[in-house]
Amino acid sequence: MNILDIIAKKRDKKVLSKEEIDFFIKEYTNGIVTDYQAAALVMAIFINGMNNEEITDLTLAMAHSGDVLDLSKFGENVVDKHSTGGVGDKVTLIITPIIASLGIPVAKMSGRGLGFTGGTVDKLESIPGYNTGISIDEFIKNVEEIGISVMGQTLNLAPADKKLYALRDTISAVESIPLIASSIMSKKIAAGANKIVLDVTCGKGAFMKTKEDAILLSKTMSAIGKLAKKETVCVITNMDEPLGYAVGNSLEMIEAIECLQNKMEPDVKEVILEIGAYIIKLADKGNNLEQNKKMILENIENGKAYSKFIQLIERQGGDIEYVKDLDKFEKAEYILPVISEKDGYIKSLNAERVGRISGELGAGRIRKEDKIDMAVGIVLKKKTGDYAKQGDILAYIHANNKNLGNEKVKDLLSVYEIVYEKVEKPNHIIGII
Amino acid sequence: MNILDIIAKKRDKKVLSKEEIDFFIKEYTNGIVTDYQAAALVMAIFINGMNNEEITDLTLAMAHSGDVLDLSKFGENVVDKHSTGGVGDKVTLIITPIIASLGIPVAKMSGRGLGFTGGTVDKLESIPGYNTGISIDEFIKNVEEIGISVMGQTLNLAPADKKLYALRDTISAVESIPLIASSIMSKKIAAGANKIVLDVTCGKGAFMKTKEDAILLSKTMSAIGKLAKKETVCVITNMDEPLGYAVGNSLEMIEAIECLQNKMEPDVKEVILEIGAYIIKLADKGNNLEQNKKMILENIENGKAYSKFIQLIERQGGDIEYVKDLDKFEKAEYILPVISEKDGYIKSLNAERVGRISGELGAGRIRKEDKIDMAVGIVLKKKTGDYAKQGDILAYIHANNKNLGNEKVKDLLSVYEIVYEKVEKPNHIIGII
Repeated sequence: MNILDIIAKKRDKKVLSKEEIDFFIKEYTNGIVTDYQAAALVMAIFINGMNNEEITDLTLAMAHSGDVLDLSKFGENVVDKHSTGGVGDKVTLIITPIIASLGIPVAKMSGRGLGFTGGTVDKLESIPGYNTGISIDEFIKNVEEIGISVMGQTLNLAPADKKLYALRDTISAVESIPLIASSIMSKKIAAGANKIVLDVTCGKGAFMKTKEDAILLSKTMSAIGKLAKKETVCVITNMDEPLGYAVGNSLEMIEAIECLQNKMEPDVKEVILEIGAYIIKLADKGNNLEQNKKMILENIENGKAYSKFIQLIERQGGDIEYVKDLDKFEKAEYILPVISEKDGYIKSLNAERVGRISGELGAGRIRKEDKIDMAVGIVLKKKTGDYAKQGDILAYIHANNKNLGNEKVKDLLSVYEIVYEKVEKPNHIIGII
Repeated sequence: MNILDIIAKKRDKKVLSKEEIDFFIKEYTNGIVTDYQAAALVMAIFINGMNNEEITDLTLAMAHSGDVLDLSKFGENVVDKHSTGGVGDKVTLIITPIIASLGIPVAKMSGRGLGFTGGTVDKLESIPGYNTGISIDEFIKNVEEIGISVMGQTLNLAPADKKLYALRDTISAVESIPLIASSIMSKKIAAGANKIVLDVTCGKGAFMKTKEDAILLSKTMSAIGKLAKKETVCVITNMDEPLGYAVGNSLEMIEAIECLQNKMEPDVKEVILEIGAYIIKLADKGNNLEQNKKMILENIENGKAYSKFIQLIERQGGDIEYVKDLDKFEKAEYILPVISEKDGYIKSLNAERVGRISGELGAGRIRKEDKIDMAVGIVLKKKTGDYAKQGDILAYIHANNKNLGNEKVKDLLSVYEIVYEKVEKPNHIIGII
């Protein structure tokens, strides 16, 4: 077997065998296959596509290219939840304690923010002391003892995917459904999941801009799940505007805690209930989705989810006084209102642009090594479908630099598209695949 | 302008502008665009193609990526001749002195052999003393004073093409008509030609295996010639079996000299007359092809072409005693007959396999740095369409190692396909584009 024949096959639109895909991933990871050979093959895959068997073989080859977390001691129904990325997305922060409070083990590895999207690990670190870098032994022990642990990705998970993703980024080969699907699924499989609920975001602030692309990606990932015997459900959610009202690290953490204190905005609630219901179903703890949603609401209302969250924070070294008294979170120096200049309905609030403004305030990273400012960000007061009068406050910019803050006030104002005609509130769940 | 956008455009089957192609070639040559980015773009070009304007832009960008030989002092009709490669191809050795003897300046840069095909420079060096590495000043001076010079490629001609070709070789992206066409034409344009006659070989021993591919390549190169204002004629010639009877360096040199001494085999003569007639036409020295062929035959018969050859060899330091007395050429130690085991007609004599046998005897190179043996090779006695009886000599193997020679006798015998039914002699000229 040699890489030239493999490249030529895909170049000529033929189907690669499992052995050929394994060979490529193995030899690319160990440096025998060069970057330029991988680039040629990736471009051929981008243009000529792959069938579901090939995509699954690629996923499994990448999943097994490094460490694979063994969660089998928690049974055969270990469910992982993953989002394809969005702005204001605090779902993991809210849903993991809810699920754990229902007696379903949660062993969650999360990522950091990059570009215009935030990351769960950064948000958790806005609580002083919370250690996202615990050892794997501690991680497992926490799940055994309190039913939940959430940490950063310290393992060498799917290094082939990392290498391939970095390459794709430099050769205009990112937006390929087979490559995106296998990248996501390989990391989930390496992280030990044997059932997966995917929040496939769709819209202006998501990687998938159109419903059609989101459906295609979802179908592809579900097909991989089926072929790889990792049952997978994709919940396609709307990411035209940010999820919830806070964007930024502490700000989202605060909103998440409020949600667990039973103060949840309708859009967040809709997404939490839908994703949660499927997690419970896949974990084999309830086949009726409506019943599952009731279980979730119940554990929010009775405080069990909130208690589980406090238990998690305490166990991993976080200062729970912050959770109990949200005023303790460090505030940005300048909290500047964004004021409407006209009357009308909010027609759109481009999530990507909001995410970028938050990033420019210091909440995000351009490069992996950039430092972030936990306190800064945006709190929205009006969202799509809301009515605003001239002089109403649309949002607040939380800034630690006044000039920058004032500049971002103007930027955010320009993101609000306000029209005369009435605008309906959007649906937040687009579909289930 | 950036390479990511350029890759994405071709990936999406769009047309690249001249500026984008220039940018790519310039930045790839100077190392700003990486090999993996070039690999991705090349694969996208391979799969999605290029139109004739793009191919011409690519050709000109590569032609101007290094030295460009200025032959303008020889007028506006400097004609170059190039073959896409074959086995036993001694056309350049024969045609250049013929053309020069007709008063048309010949400033020819030739290559060395690689793989199963030989190279003119190697063959010339079988004459002791002949210097293929003269300076450009000498080269020009020779053309000025005796009307002809033939040397190796010492200039840095089309380095972008060299770099790109080496890359293509490692990523299964060689067999692409746009890339082959621009590679050939860029070198010709850099070598100073403003009119080009291309011998496009076609068949088992050629790069283009089918007539369709040869026609497509020819049409593409003619289109480049038209758009680049370098009038180009493609003569498609048959390369199912070797051209002429000798394969190997000294052996082909000897055959070429015999041709100039008016002992020319029919297939060689047909190709020489056709290509020569077009060179004369493009040089504006005769519009009537039949008349041009007569001029060629005349200068072979009257010895003028032969005298010009001797003049060339002498001028570049070669020992003309070798030309005058062919017995002086060093002979291989073992000259072993290949004997027919049955009666019948030669149906085929795969040129690539013959070329490989010659290479394995030592006449060719696998890597650029390999040394070659001038004396070894093959002399055919029977070719396609000939009748052989059991016991007849089909060919001779010229070897400097007896065991190897005997092995190659068997190999060559297995290349002769002999059948009972009568076989017609093939056409040597397949078409003109």
